[in-house]
Amino acid sequence: MTLAHGRAACEQLDQQDPLAALRDEFILPDGVIYLDGNSLGARPKASLQRAQEVIAQEWGTDLIKSWNKAGWFDLPSTLGNQLAPLIGAQADEVVVTDSTSINLFKAISAALQMQSGDAQRKVIITERSNFPTDIYVAEGITRWLDRGYQIQLIDTPDELPQVINEKTALVMLTHVNYRTGYLHDMRAVTALIHQHGALALWDLAHSAGAVPVELNAAQADFAVGCTYKYLNGGPGAPAFIWVPQRHQAAFQHPLSGWWGHASPFAMQPHFEPTANIRRALCGTQPMVSLALVGCGLDIFGQTTMQAIRKKSLALTDLFIALVESQCAAHPLELVTPRSHQQRGSQASFHHPHAYAIIQALIERGVIGDYREPGIMRFGFTPLYVRYVDVWDAVASLRDILDREDYDLHAKRHAVT
Amino acid sequence: MTLAHGRAACEQLDQQDPLAALRDEFILPDGVIYLDGNSLGARPKASLQRAQEVIAQEWGTDLIKSWNKAGWFDLPSTLGNQLAPLIGAQADEVVVTDSTSINLFKAISAALQMQSGDAQRKVIITERSNFPTDIYVAEGITRWLDRGYQIQLIDTPDELPQVINEKTALVMLTHVNYRTGYLHDMRAVTALIHQHGALALWDLAHSAGAVPVELNAAQADFAVGCTYKYLNGGPGAPAFIWVPQRHQAAFQHPLSGWWGHASPFAMQPHFEPTANIRRALCGTQPMVSLALVGCGLDIFGQTTMQAIRKKSLALTDLFIALVESQCAAHPLELVTPRSHQQRGSQASFHHPHAYAIIQALIERGVIGDYREPGIMRFGFTPLYVRYVDVWDAVASLRDILDREDYDLHAKRHAVT
Repeated sequence: MTLAHGRAACEQLDQQDPLAALRDEFILPDGVIYLDGNSLGARPKASLQRAQEVIAQEWGTDLIKSWNKAGWFDLPSTLGNQLAPLIGAQADEVVVTDSTSINLFKAISAALQMQSGDAQRKVIITERSNFPTDIYVAEGITRWLDRGYQIQLIDTPDELPQVINEKTALVMLTHVNYRTGYLHDMRAVTALIHQHGALALWDLAHSAGAVPVELNAAQADFAVGCTYKYLNGGPGAPAFIWVPQRHQAAFQHPLSGWWGHASPFAMQPHFEPTANIRRALCGTQPMVSLALVGCGLDIFGQTTMQAIRKKSLALTDLFIALVESQCAAHPLELVTPRSHQQRGSQASFHHPHAYAIIQALIERGVIGDYREPGIMRFGFTPLYVRYVDVWDAVASLRDILDREDYDLHAKRHAVT
Repeated sequence: MTLAHGRAACEQLDQQDPLAALRDEFILPDGVIYLDGNSLGARPKASLQRAQEVIAQEWGTDLIKSWNKAGWFDLPSTLGNQLAPLIGAQADEVVVTDSTSINLFKAISAALQMQSGDAQRKVIITERSNFPTDIYVAEGITRWLDRGYQIQLIDTPDELPQVINEKTALVMLTHVNYRTGYLHDMRAVTALIHQHGALALWDLAHSAGAVPVELNAAQADFAVGCTYKYLNGGPGAPAFIWVPQRHQAAFQHPLSGWWGHASPFAMQPHFEPTANIRRALCGTQPMVSLALVGCGLDIFGQTTMQAIRKKSLALTDLFIALVESQCAAHPLELVTPRSHQQRGSQASFHHPHAYAIIQALIERGVIGDYREPGIMRFGFTPLYVRYVDVWDAVASLRDILDREDYDLHAKRHAVT
């Protein structure tokens, strides 16, 4: 690829792209370049028919029989097993259930419980730049337990070696930062955490389906993540939680609902957690939304995370190079690491008028999003984003910047 | 209605039934008499088109714009406001979110927090026969907090006046018992609870949409409930939580996720709960399942809870009378109260071979369900159950019993 060849070179890259055919598995609106799959993944074609099946047949016709016949009750585990290879997990280590926030609550609670034998381990370390809900949930737990637990916020990953010590109970990191796209070295950081006797909880919201993840190989302790971003599970689709076999017996959390019971239908008046990963479940799951997670996962069965990663880096490399060459006259600052080893599947740029520029891009059909403070965020989903999309997105961005064709008073939406 | 007139009299009742037309709002499979709407409500016709709208248009075409444009972010409140009049709540007091178990966790936590100023209030009272997850969640909280909280299980509602005292922090009751159909007098019991300075948490899983509920008139403190039973929201559809205006400022729980934050999109590194009912939210909600809750609620807009209650009592009266007259030769024992004041919208009978008999009924298209120990449970949803259904169901039951046409070795399913 040389930029000198322009759009034609991008077309050629698309023709040679081994993942090109997978774009046909998705529905994308006409005239849209969708660079926001890191916020809400695009819709798999199969999702509409799957929803019809669940609603018309499983619910409408088979009614309560579907708890057995359609596998509703087992679906959190069935989907968890389908997801497992994408994140380096074994069978029976993942369930798809509840929200990421709720699953964080379970994992943090369980980690503190496992560390409670050591009275000095009272510190939870995380990044100030972590997705806020991760910090909020940790705050909820520490305030509630009122046993001297503290949350220590660090400003850069470089601080980790200095701050982790014998007082650290848990280090809780998001594998790929939602804003900057910074990718942690899960294996090295987990080893560092373990050297000091702490536990490692990884939030995979921006890495599951985006970058190769090897939870077991990294000896991670817990993980949670989201299915509605790179996994294309549908708006707000249930999240997941991973507990490795070696920790399952010790995994205890206070959200002890009936789906986590050893005999959920015996209707016993006391809670006894089941022996396996299903102890991470709590209550009844939303079956229509849950079933659609399978449509997204099915597509990953047609490729590998290595192939996805290769294209992801090529797309983000190209985007960064084009922005920096085409828009060099403008005060854009790359906040995503240039190093492949530290980059997720997104590219974020700072600009003083980032919000207005993103709105202008959206009006032209180039969908990225805005994140405080002053960051334009572009996500690249190799399953459906093409090289020409990258070219065209940068052409639009350049035109908007060159012509200052954005409204500095653009109305802020509640959600972008 | 006189039984002497048999099925023809039931047909006449159906012709005179002011709710008869509402049955057309539902899809019910041919040849099925569905008496299990207390487990999973039947499918509203509108649900398929609504799902298509959410999946094809809101997700597929509008993508992330739908968080604003389609009202996704507000949907827990929008649906909560639509549900409010059915349970005697005001606007901005209910959100539809998460599961009943998760919502119980929030409400129990908040109640204990509110009572924490009185060091002697350490007891949570509930019924041994409560739906197990209610007890399990309370156990999870008391064990986790480890501050001397105790759960006291009572065997009959009659014990309440004796056991509630100055040590009681919270009384947590299910308004209509899932097994027996016993209906508590919410107003009187709440008054009793308040006399002793305790708080009253009501689980409306089997009463929302089934019997009139007047949460504010009864001065209840908190309520949770289910949308996939009598409210026909779809399999595992998100549950709801009610916090009256007077308690909202004090309502604190440890599931402090970003959807409950005062400024969820400011991405602040510390949690600050929003001032209103949305502080009962935690993480991102499953939009497809959530949207379908609206289809069930829309149907209630065509009638009143008073009309529903009138037909519900007529149906259960008829069912009980027919079973007791037609099946008098068999060891069936009514476990549901005869008194209208104490009866929900179900009728349960004990029989030594209840499990096998339920399986035989299901094979004949009469769908009730089994609950331990030895209970056949039949739910009556006045929106779609007809008087002739009652007649035909009892005729099938009688035939099965008279001919002993059931298999005592019927295989137990994981879920029924």
